[in-house]
Amino acid sequence: MPDVCFLNGKFLPIEDAYVHIEDRGFQFGDSLYEVVRMYEGIPFRASQHLDRLFRGLDFIQLEIPYSKDDLIKIFDDAAKRSGRGTAFIYLQVTRGSAGPRSHVFVPGYKPTVVITVRAIDPMPEATREAGLKSITHPDWRWPNNYVKATTLLPNVLIRTKASRLGCYDAVLYREDGYITEGTVSNFFAVLNGVLRTHPLTGRILAGVTRNAVLEIAKAQGIPHEERAIRVDEVYHAGETFFADTYGEIIPIVEIDGHKIGAGKTGPVAMNLWRAFRELVKKETAR
Amino acid sequence: MPDVCFLNGKFLPIEDAYVHIEDRGFQFGDSLYEVVRMYEGIPFRASQHLDRLFRGLDFIQLEIPYSKDDLIKIFDDAAKRSGRGTAFIYLQVTRGSAGPRSHVFVPGYKPTVVITVRAIDPMPEATREAGLKSITHPDWRWPNNYVKATTLLPNVLIRTKASRLGCYDAVLYREDGYITEGTVSNFFAVLNGVLRTHPLTGRILAGVTRNAVLEIAKAQGIPHEERAIRVDEVYHAGETFFADTYGEIIPIVEIDGHKIGAGKTGPVAMNLWRAFRELVKKETAR
Repeated sequence: MPDVCFLNGKFLPIEDAYVHIEDRGFQFGDSLYEVVRMYEGIPFRASQHLDRLFRGLDFIQLEIPYSKDDLIKIFDDAAKRSGRGTAFIYLQVTRGSAGPRSHVFVPGYKPTVVITVRAIDPMPEATREAGLKSITHPDWRWPNNYVKATTLLPNVLIRTKASRLGCYDAVLYREDGYITEGTVSNFFAVLNGVLRTHPLTGRILAGVTRNAVLEIAKAQGIPHEERAIRVDEVYHAGETFFADTYGEIIPIVEIDGHKIGAGKTGPVAMNLWRAFRELVKKETAR
Repeated sequence: MPDVCFLNGKFLPIEDAYVHIEDRGFQFGDSLYEVVRMYEGIPFRASQHLDRLFRGLDFIQLEIPYSKDDLIKIFDDAAKRSGRGTAFIYLQVTRGSAGPRSHVFVPGYKPTVVITVRAIDPMPEATREAGLKSITHPDWRWPNNYVKATTLLPNVLIRTKASRLGCYDAVLYREDGYITEGTVSNFFAVLNGVLRTHPLTGRILAGVTRNAVLEIAKAQGIPHEERAIRVDEVYHAGETFFADTYGEIIPIVEIDGHKIGAGKTGPVAMNLWRAFRELVKKETAR
């Protein structure tokens, strides 16, 4: 099955998809992105991803020549062309180029819009059930993480460090000692029996999986609270997990070498994961 | 006179210079850059720029297939090919691409190296002598600004805001109230007769023009101190100025609508600027 690529209005082989060296996405990270997961060939909650994209575009003052409906149609087309069941749709939008380099942008830039569909290997069940590890790390990112920008070097460096230590991701905390999220994930902990995660402020991404977790918690009557967790509380949590589009719900059983709870995957995380899979199944049924 | 472009070992017309959409510079801002000014066809202090580049490459764990001497030779070649006297040499180095997107980098990436020579219009004398304006703005960037990364969206947004308010740049301050630098410049103020600027920590760029200003201050016996300035002190400064490769020394006579000193270009800034021009003349004489 082919990888699929759409660039500025045309589908083309991914190996032929290039952008100019003076594209502002390349020179400035003047660019946003989204990653949507396909299940059974259906993009999951693409509408939520795109609402978030348009909030971000508003923040960076970038108008693109596509509406949300246009992008959903292109996603569907790309999904079909790929012939895949499980895959990632990657969307990146940049301010394009208007000649010689200048930080200051002026009206008249022609945005670059890239969409690809690429295969993914879902997380093996045994990995999830065994639980994964994390480190903690200072949150090096800007204060506007609700905007999903491609200025990802902090994430790259921190996640690479975590990965080399055998960890799935890093739990990021700010100078005030409060945990925000991971480098590719939102973060949850069960503290004194209450499921907690950072509230939806500018500091974190409004994760689509995060939203689904809170939806399920509400529906199931699981005690939960959107209130930031202090990094010095986290070793004492009963359970911790990350939530993201790739890994869905990822139990974390060890942080900085400290066992979390019993040091194995807990019932809250596994229950939420199963409920999440049910939700996906329901929404991606044909 | 042509614009010049070098991409991964070859000179080519700039309009033909493209990178793949999965280049990590494009997708992640996993990429560093330098901007060197040419005077009379000679790159000014290219060696200092490149030492800084290699310190940054070390931080992001990226090895490139060129030594400092190799890059200096390419700069000289590019400068000659351009036929220009006054111009910018722009260098960007990325971790290249190794197929499908992943934050975690592994050995074996083939870096992308881009060098361009582009014309610039130097700042008009009348503009500098009249003095320019600035705003203050929270410093949205990461804590490792000594690394000159292309993750520049915060700089783009803040400088665009400043520009629309008729300002040259913004004076950035961190949550603790201390000024770091501008979005494209280092920042200096004269407070109680002493020239001050942020010390060389990870929070600021070791600007080549900044270094030259301190060199001149030392040589001329101008009282000076590398000590961070509080944002609430700055309106009371006798003089303020930015220092950067493009504008050299840029007197700032108004910040957030408050007049600085007498509200006109001061003697310290103009003296430093003249001395800087002398230094450039001496070092770029054939």
